[in-house]
Amino acid sequence: MRTVTDVEAMQSYAEEARREGKVIALVPTMGFLHEGHLSLIRLADEAADVVVTSIYVNPTQFGPSEDVDQYPRDIDRDTTLAQQAGTDVLFVPTDKAMYSQGYQTFVTVENLTRGLCGAFRPTHFRGVTTIVTKLFNIVRPHISVFGQKDAQQAIVIKRMTRDLNFDIEIKVAPIVRHEDGLAMSSRNKYLTPQQRSQAPVLYQSLCAANKMIEEGERNPNVVKKHTKDMIEAIASSKIDYIEIVNAETLEPVREIRGNILIALAVYIGKARLIDNILIKV
Amino acid sequence: MRTVTDVEAMQSYAEEARREGKVIALVPTMGFLHEGHLSLIRLADEAADVVVTSIYVNPTQFGPSEDVDQYPRDIDRDTTLAQQAGTDVLFVPTDKAMYSQGYQTFVTVENLTRGLCGAFRPTHFRGVTTIVTKLFNIVRPHISVFGQKDAQQAIVIKRMTRDLNFDIEIKVAPIVRHEDGLAMSSRNKYLTPQQRSQAPVLYQSLCAANKMIEEGERNPNVVKKHTKDMIEAIASSKIDYIEIVNAETLEPVREIRGNILIALAVYIGKARLIDNILIKV
Repeated sequence: MRTVTDVEAMQSYAEEARREGKVIALVPTMGFLHEGHLSLIRLADEAADVVVTSIYVNPTQFGPSEDVDQYPRDIDRDTTLAQQAGTDVLFVPTDKAMYSQGYQTFVTVENLTRGLCGAFRPTHFRGVTTIVTKLFNIVRPHISVFGQKDAQQAIVIKRMTRDLNFDIEIKVAPIVRHEDGLAMSSRNKYLTPQQRSQAPVLYQSLCAANKMIEEGERNPNVVKKHTKDMIEAIASSKIDYIEIVNAETLEPVREIRGNILIALAVYIGKARLIDNILIKV
Repeated sequence: MRTVTDVEAMQSYAEEARREGKVIALVPTMGFLHEGHLSLIRLADEAADVVVTSIYVNPTQFGPSEDVDQYPRDIDRDTTLAQQAGTDVLFVPTDKAMYSQGYQTFVTVENLTRGLCGAFRPTHFRGVTTIVTKLFNIVRPHISVFGQKDAQQAIVIKRMTRDLNFDIEIKVAPIVRHEDGLAMSSRNKYLTPQQRSQAPVLYQSLCAANKMIEEGERNPNVVKKHTKDMIEAIASSKIDYIEIVNAETLEPVREIRGNILIALAVYIGKARLIDNILIKV
C-alpha cells in the first residue's frame, strides 16, 4: 500500500491505472476506521483492481457548532487497518489542498437533503456532495462504496452521481453492528461506559418497530410512538428525529407500504448517533 | 465527423479515446453557431486530437422570463459549420437525457456570480456551472474552450474547474467581432435592421472608455458615466449594467489600476447583448 497526500499525484496515478484498464474503487472515509469502514474496503477489494481509501475529515460537512476539531483521528492505526483490509492507495489530502484560498464552489442535491438529518444539519449534505464530487474527480473511480448506516447520504450520493453524469457505480454496504446491536460509528467513542451500555436501545427500538410492522401495524405514528417511548426511557437520550419514509424519495409515508426506511438520529450524551432499517412491506 | 446524441455512447467514446492516449477538447455551445464559436472550435482543433463540440440549449441557465424556447436553432447549418471548423464529434443530447425525472443536483460558484450578469440573472450561472459539470463528466475532456465574450462565465468556469478538481485546462479565446465592432452573438438575430446599425455603440463605448483610461482617467465613475451617455444616446437601448471590476475577483474597483475588466449588458430592443474589454493599467 502507498500513501498519497498530493492531489495531482493522486490524479496522475488514477489516470495511469485507468489507461492500463484497471478498475478503481474509492472508499471515502473520515478516518478513525472501524469494522464498518473495513467492510466497505473489503467489498471494494472484491469488485476492483485498485482500492483507494480516502481519509479526510471534511470541514464543510460540519456545522458551526459541530465537532470537526474534536472528531477522532488516528492515522497510524488507520494506515494499518486500511492496508490489512485491502487498500492499495491511502489518499490523505490536506485542508489546504482541498479548500484553497478563494474556494467557493458547492454541489447541492435539493429535495432529498431537506428531511431527516438535512433538517437538523442544514449545510451537512452540501459539504458531503461537494467533497465527494472532488474525490470523484481526483481518484476517478469506476466504483465507489458507501455504508447503509448513513442511509440518507447513500441515497443523496446516488442521486448526485446520476444527475451529474458521473460514470461511477455506487455500491452500498450493509450496516456492521457490535454484538449487542449498536451500529459501528467513530462517534461511539464519545459515549461514557454507562451510555455505551444503553446505546443499543436505538437498534432495539428499530427491531421493535420492525416487529410491529410484521405483525400488521401500518400506521407510522403508532410505530414511531413506540420507538420514541423505548428511546426516551434512557435518561441521557435526546431525539433529533425518528422518521418512517419512502426508501427512495425519503418522504414521510402516511401508511406503511412498499419499500420503507425507518431512520433515527438520537443524542446519547454528547454523541449524535444515527441508525436505520430498510423494510419491504 | 460523427453526431452523438446518447450520453452513454459519448462517455464510451471518450473513455476509449483517453485509453488510446488521445487528447480531447470540448467546446460547449448552445448552437446557432457563428464565427465566435468557430474560432473556439479551431483553437480546440489546434490543441487536441479529438474535438467534441456540444450543442445544447440548456434550460437551467435561462430565467423564467427568458428566451429558452425562442433561442435560435439551426442544427443542419450548425452541423456543416462545426465540421468545417474541425469538430470530430458533435454531441447533441436531448433534454430528457440531460435532466431526467427527479433531477435535483446543482453546482454553484458563490462570490464570482453575485455581480455583473449574476445580479440580473440570479439562476443563470448555477445553470451554466451545472451543465458544464455534466458535460465535463460525459465528454471527459483534457481541454475545454470558452469565449472571452462571456467574460464572467469564463472566470466562473475556471474557478469551478479548480475548486472541484477537474483535471481540465480551460482556454479562453478572444472576442470575435463584426467589421463594425459588434461582438458576434446568436442573440444579434433578434435585432431589427435599424437596431443592428446602432448596436456597434456598445463596442464604441468600450473603446472610448479605454481611450479615457489611456489618457489618464482613473476614476471608474467618470469612465462609466461617459460610457453610459454614449449608449443612452440610442433610443432603443436599456442598460442592465456597465461595470469596471477587478479582472480576477470581478469586484468593482474604486480606482482604475491593475488588471481591469470593463463589462456591460445592454438591451438593444429585445436583444440583451453583452460585451467587455480587458485592460492592464
